[in-house]
Amino acid sequence: MPDRLEELRERLRGFVREREWEQFHSPKNLVMAMIVEAAELVEQFQWATEHQSHDLTPEKLAEVEQELADTFIYLLRLSDVLGIDLIDAAHRKMEINAKKYPVEKARGRNDKYTAYE
Amino acid sequence: MPDRLEELRERLRGFVREREWEQFHSPKNLVMAMIVEAAELVEQFQWATEHQSHDLTPEKLAEVEQELADTFIYLLRLSDVLGIDLIDAAHRKMEINAKKYPVEKARGRNDKYTAYE
Amino acid sequence: MPDRLEELRERLRGFVREREWEQFHSPKNLVMAMIVEAAELVEQFQWATEHQSHDLTPEKLAEVEQELADTFIYLLRLSDVLGIDLIDAAHRKMEINAKKYPVEKARGRNDKYTAYE
Amino acid sequence: MPDRLEELRERLRGFVREREWEQFHSPKNLVMAMIVEAAELVEQFQWATEHQSHDLTPEKLAEVEQELADTFIYLLRLSDVLGIDLIDAAHRKMEINAKKYPVEKARGRNDKYTAYE
Repeated sequence: MPDRLEELRERLRGFVREREWEQFHSPKNLVMAMIVEAAELVEQFQWATEHQSHDLTPEKLAEVEQELADTFIYLLRLSDVLGIDLIDAAHRKMEINAKKYPVEKARGRNDKYTAYE
Repeated sequence: MPDRLEELRERLRGFVREREWEQFHSPKNLVMAMIVEAAELVEQFQWATEHQSHDLTPEKLAEVEQELADTFIYLLRLSDVLGIDLIDAAHRKMEINAKKYPVEKARGRNDKYTAYE
Repeated sequence: MPDRLEELRERLRGFVREREWEQFHSPKNLVMAMIVEAAELVEQFQWATEHQSHDLTPEKLAEVEQELADTFIYLLRLSDVLGIDLIDAAHRKMEINAKKYPVEKARGRNDKYTAYE
Repeated sequence: MPDRLEELRERLRGFVREREWEQFHSPKNLVMAMIVEAAELVEQFQWATEHQSHDLTPEKLAEVEQELADTFIYLLRLSDVLGIDLIDAAHRKMEINAKKYPVEKARGRNDKYTAYE
């Protein structure tokens, strides 16, 4: 049974191939497109208080979902062009983060890890 | 059998819970953390030519993989806090994008969709 | 008497010329470098509450000042490469913004201008 | 004779005060608004080649000018709220950068300074 992420990655490959967009999809360009979408997601929250950011109207949530999706689509596309599996990479990074932020030191604190090295 | 993305999401929830970091994880804060990681990914490519960006050394690729992973981790965490499934959201957005960028009009072009509406 | 902004722009030109960095300073690359610095500024505030963000320690303020400066330096350099005067451009944009956000409609509201067009 | 940057800063203060927007202008919110504008500037260049990014049509240049202005406006506003003079801060940072990137080592190279420390 194909994995859901792999299925999406394949669909995305087809979408790009049909439009002959591989020529534009250098990692340099994709990373720019990705941060542009990421910022559209930031825009949704820029004037909200933290409290309000938890409590979106259905209309706002629908917009947020679309910006989240666009960011994810470019991130997945970038990872595919680079030959990186996003989920494996995330697991490997979580091992590193677990060492940078040991539970007993990091509990309830929002400092950067360099603060308790 | 649990899906790979759901497994990662669960692992991430546990990581945050153990460290009592839910208190910091408002969508407003998470979207800020996410774009900071996205920019660390941009940094990897800022002085590279497009051609060079395809052809990374193993050391550079390893760094890129970590920044990619950090961005993805915050994106996944944000989607989880908002109750959005990333993959479902991406499929829905691809339906919209397919209409904004019809194959016959978009083929081989890098204009914004507003250019051929 | 030379203007302070023009003086800084000249100093920056000299800095770049001495290091033979003009070859890397395409607008595409400069805009990437600029957003990377902008994100380092975001990082300074990502876990702070709004209230805390007003009330920085002297050490934190010194870091913020450096990130602010780096963002400004790249923005100024980009504008110079494109032949745009930042201050004139800002005045022109403020005319436009004054029309998009008329005082009587925008007072005390944080909506995007499209909300009251 | 008032300095051009100070004049713009004053004008901006008046713009914000008239609209009673000081309440939204925490540094945390302003830095978010600033990176959103910075990304709109990135968007102008995301699919361009480096060569194309030097050679904009008048229409494109006019759009770029507006995004550049918006980014600068928020950066100036943020610096004002924090009590930082942008130009002084930039000069101080250039002293630091000159040490991080000594001419004889940095000439013609695009490495991060950590590469030759």
